[in-house]
Amino acid sequence: MQRSANQVVPRLSPTEVQNGIDRLAAIGTTRLAYTSDDLRGRQLIAHMMREVGLEVRIDSAGNMFGRREGMEELPPIVFGSHVDTVRGGGRFDGVLGVVAGIVCIQALEQSRIRTRHPLEVVVFVNEEGQRFGALTGSRAAVGDLSESDLDIRDESGETLRDAIRAVGGSPEDIASSVLQAGDIAAYLELHIEQGGELEERGVSIGVVEGISGIQHVDVRLVGAANHSGTTTMSARRDALVAAAVFVLAVRQAAAERKLCRVATVGQLTVSPNSINIVPGEVKLTLELRDITATRIAAALESIRSEALLTARAHHVAVEFTPRPLVAPVLSHSTIIQLITESCETLGLSHHAMPSGAGHDAQMMARVAPMGMIFVPSAGGISHSPKEFSSAEDCTHGAEVLLHTILRLDRLSTDQLKGVSQA
Amino acid sequence: MQRSANQVVPRLSPTEVQNGIDRLAAIGTTRLAYTSDDLRGRQLIAHMMREVGLEVRIDSAGNMFGRREGMEELPPIVFGSHVDTVRGGGRFDGVLGVVAGIVCIQALEQSRIRTRHPLEVVVFVNEEGQRFGALTGSRAAVGDLSESDLDIRDESGETLRDAIRAVGGSPEDIASSVLQAGDIAAYLELHIEQGGELEERGVSIGVVEGISGIQHVDVRLVGAANHSGTTTMSARRDALVAAAVFVLAVRQAAAERKLCRVATVGQLTVSPNSINIVPGEVKLTLELRDITATRIAAALESIRSEALLTARAHHVAVEFTPRPLVAPVLSHSTIIQLITESCETLGLSHHAMPSGAGHDAQMMARVAPMGMIFVPSAGGISHSPKEFSSAEDCTHGAEVLLHTILRLDRLSTDQLKGVSQA
Repeated sequence: MQRSANQVVPRLSPTEVQNGIDRLAAIGTTRLAYTSDDLRGRQLIAHMMREVGLEVRIDSAGNMFGRREGMEELPPIVFGSHVDTVRGGGRFDGVLGVVAGIVCIQALEQSRIRTRHPLEVVVFVNEEGQRFGALTGSRAAVGDLSESDLDIRDESGETLRDAIRAVGGSPEDIASSVLQAGDIAAYLELHIEQGGELEERGVSIGVVEGISGIQHVDVRLVGAANHSGTTTMSARRDALVAAAVFVLAVRQAAAERKLCRVATVGQLTVSPNSINIVPGEVKLTLELRDITATRIAAALESIRSEALLTARAHHVAVEFTPRPLVAPVLSHSTIIQLITESCETLGLSHHAMPSGAGHDAQMMARVAPMGMIFVPSAGGISHSPKEFSSAEDCTHGAEVLLHTILRLDRLSTDQLKGVSQA
Repeated sequence: MQRSANQVVPRLSPTEVQNGIDRLAAIGTTRLAYTSDDLRGRQLIAHMMREVGLEVRIDSAGNMFGRREGMEELPPIVFGSHVDTVRGGGRFDGVLGVVAGIVCIQALEQSRIRTRHPLEVVVFVNEEGQRFGALTGSRAAVGDLSESDLDIRDESGETLRDAIRAVGGSPEDIASSVLQAGDIAAYLELHIEQGGELEERGVSIGVVEGISGIQHVDVRLVGAANHSGTTTMSARRDALVAAAVFVLAVRQAAAERKLCRVATVGQLTVSPNSINIVPGEVKLTLELRDITATRIAAALESIRSEALLTARAHHVAVEFTPRPLVAPVLSHSTIIQLITESCETLGLSHHAMPSGAGHDAQMMARVAPMGMIFVPSAGGISHSPKEFSSAEDCTHGAEVLLHTILRLDRLSTDQLKGVSQA
């Protein structure tokens, strides 16, 4: 066993990584959480975990852990992701992080490298949330899932409580799965980017600085519906014209003024929506994402002020109803540094970036130092059968994961104090 | 009987005009064409026609005429409008033109003024078209209603053929109602403006220059739907952003560049219309109205060129699918002059303007010299129980109608040659 900085870290085989991804894809890429499809995926992963010597357990929330003991009495270093998918999903989202974790363990076994910390590969249940809302597994793991959440029903009427039982969990003991700060040494997640930034930049690895916060706002613009033939242009109170100015201001706030990372009007409906009636009312949704909450707040304030001016100019009333902020989560600065050093050691180009999408890591950051590694998504496409990351890129990510695990393993507990926001 | 320019034209009583409007409103202001509600309105009008000595007949299409004989063998001067309403309609739309016509006849009777031409007050059936499409009565009167149109069914499954029978028409003889050029000397229609222009200008009478043509275009913008969190602003192909630029260009084309009278995007739908997905597709409708067809065509071309540039800038594809042009119709220049002179004689302020909405007059213009008179609509509101025009304004319109009838009556047939476009 070696611990020096000169430790020889085993190389990983693209064939092994690809093979793991292919084995899961072979049973289909629509595996909604808690369904029999999901269960088959989880059973296959459990089998793959045991093949590399991991001891498999399922917690009361249905999350699955594969454990390899360490040499010292320390909390485990945990890494993984999820294997549930969206309807019509792809082969890589979630799966890469779990398969790469197993391949890392396999390499350590083959190279007979022991670690001070126990290592655990985790499969969080229901990251995607198409049936019961997102992240129910990792939320339960940090004590964010209440009794009433367990009573949520999907479209077919099944409760989350029964769904958790179907994957081997015990909803009546859900509290027993809650992790406290200190229970795990660190949490790492390798994931496909799901965006096009790494590909655009021609970079191999995204070092995730944090997971964007999300501010959703319901916006209502009220003008006056009127006859499109008889209402002169100057007499109009056209809610859609005011909405068009708003949509462009939202784009400008992110694209040109850089007030926040991304800003989107995704939903827009017009009333009465008739070919010969001046639109009287528009309802739309505004979404702002950034890893800095103050930037989200400032962008929102700027867009709101501009909207009020626009609305006044068009004699349209505007109502802003912000939903609760989903706060941004920062990666742990020490882990960011270790991931960056791992890229340097491996000679891989890297780019510091936020995650625009949500991940189990954002929950784990509440109880442990957290870090995430991204690999490029071809064309930025995700949640689609067209989702693709090359075996080479996936393996680069897995190697950065392995290097980071081993660097973390050498740190003292003091060096990883605090959780991610530290 | 007097025919000289010094003829004393009787004044009309605001009470009489108001009374006629009130009598019709008393039976309810939702009177969809061909329904029992419409029938009650028509029966009341027939009764009012007979009260002033008119001889009532219903043509095979269901249009109702009240006739007063003239002193010479001449084609009649026809004036009127419609008494059907939209669902939740108002008291004045259509009704004013018919009631004013009857009040004019009453005044001529009381003053014992005879005319050279026969006079006919007309009630066209189904101007509004909420059940079978608009203008079926006046379309039939000019031969524009085909056998297949008679088979159109409303939502309840009733055919237009049966509906025409219900108001006393004979659909099997529909051809017998078709008017040819020369069959009537002139057609006049007094109507509320349905817009706010006269009120804004503080003017009593709108002298209608013509009825706007309408160009409808279906527009489809195709970008790429993608994750709103992971897709950078620069990588987006946001169909809604391109649509917003389009909506503002449409407004600008009419409001600032004055390429056509009014331009409207009334309908707009977004796909997939999800709070966290960049819009991939937008379908919208463009409507252009003007009384000059070449201006409509030029505005359309300008908007189309601009849309192509916008779409290219946002990497969005754009499809334009124009529907058939509803051609503009011009009022007869001689009648415009007579209406204007009548306003001058009566000391009423007037303003030459197009009609933005469609009217039975646009059909009658195909077979007769046509003119229209507008009175102000309070707040520009129409097709609503809030529709309002004061008794004073309505009576001003009726007096202009009476003056114009009497001026027309003095013209020789040669002086009114041609139809409206002449």
